[in-house]
Amino acid sequence: MQSGGVTGIKEQFYLDDLRVGQRFTSGTYLMDEAAIKAFAAEFDPQPFHLDDAAAAASVFRGLAASGWHTAGVAMRLLTTGGLPLAGGLVGLGGEIAWPIPTRPGDILNVESEIAEIKPSRSKPHQGIVTVKSTMFNQNGEAVYLLTAKLLVPRRQVPSGD
Amino acid sequence: MQSGGVTGIKEQFYLDDLRVGQRFTSGTYLMDEAAIKAFAAEFDPQPFHLDDAAAAASVFRGLAASGWHTAGVAMRLLTTGGLPLAGGLVGLGGEIAWPIPTRPGDILNVESEIAEIKPSRSKPHQGIVTVKSTMFNQNGEAVYLLTAKLLVPRRQVPSGD
Repeated sequence: MQSGGVTGIKEQFYLDDLRVGQRFTSGTYLMDEAAIKAFAAEFDPQPFHLDDAAAAASVFRGLAASGWHTAGVAMRLLTTGGLPLAGGLVGLGGEIAWPIPTRPGDILNVESEIAEIKPSRSKPHQGIVTVKSTMFNQNGEAVYLLTAKLLVPRRQVPSGD
Repeated sequence: MQSGGVTGIKEQFYLDDLRVGQRFTSGTYLMDEAAIKAFAAEFDPQPFHLDDAAAAASVFRGLAASGWHTAGVAMRLLTTGGLPLAGGLVGLGGEIAWPIPTRPGDILNVESEIAEIKPSRSKPHQGIVTVKSTMFNQNGEAVYLLTAKLLVPRRQVPSGD
């Protein structure tokens, strides 16, 4: 089903270890039709995510994954090796876009780039890092864009001692 | 588990039926602990979404739903009566934020407001509508903010005949 994490990266990056422009690559994930329909039944029960004939007649012209399923798969890939930040991935918010649909059989992977690093002034043990992630299908087409603001801990707290 | 759709709204709104400032209210959804852990296991397998003790020691100070689970529940509420747009909810992208965590036992509902309506010039049968949605918990606290750009069909195509 998924092979996120196969890259075997064990290193965890603190805020102090990151630099703007640094890039990370995830493993891959196979989006299968049963999973598309199961996710849709629970969270996005619209005909074009549930039924092949209805999807063919819709604006999607064929079965398409819920955009929120696509977003969940990207998070799976990011949390299983795709973006190995210390303390895990704690998002405050961000921007999302789905340029084209995710389809049954798509093999997905995520590339991420550190866009901005802001140490907190009031909380010296952490900061906010902006990460731009793109999820691609097996044809190299971008199916999902995420610009996320993440809470990232510092390796060591600056001290006056 | 969920009672989205209980409002019984059957009317479907086309682009032509919408006005800026118009508001919509969803049904409610109970976020339960088993569902939080099941979603996290599949899409966001981080300790603070999976394990009570680890969550208590984390930045969340207790079990918290994945933000993507929270987003999925909001979509469930929007697609089951919370935002009855003709042709369904087809999102192009948007902005998201999670001001506070969603917790086990939270009872959630979504309020939405039409923020902008842009008929397409090149495709006279549709347009882009911007909707600002806020999901609240049972204490009236905003747990999720979504500003989404949606593709909405027109009731009738303007004709030169």
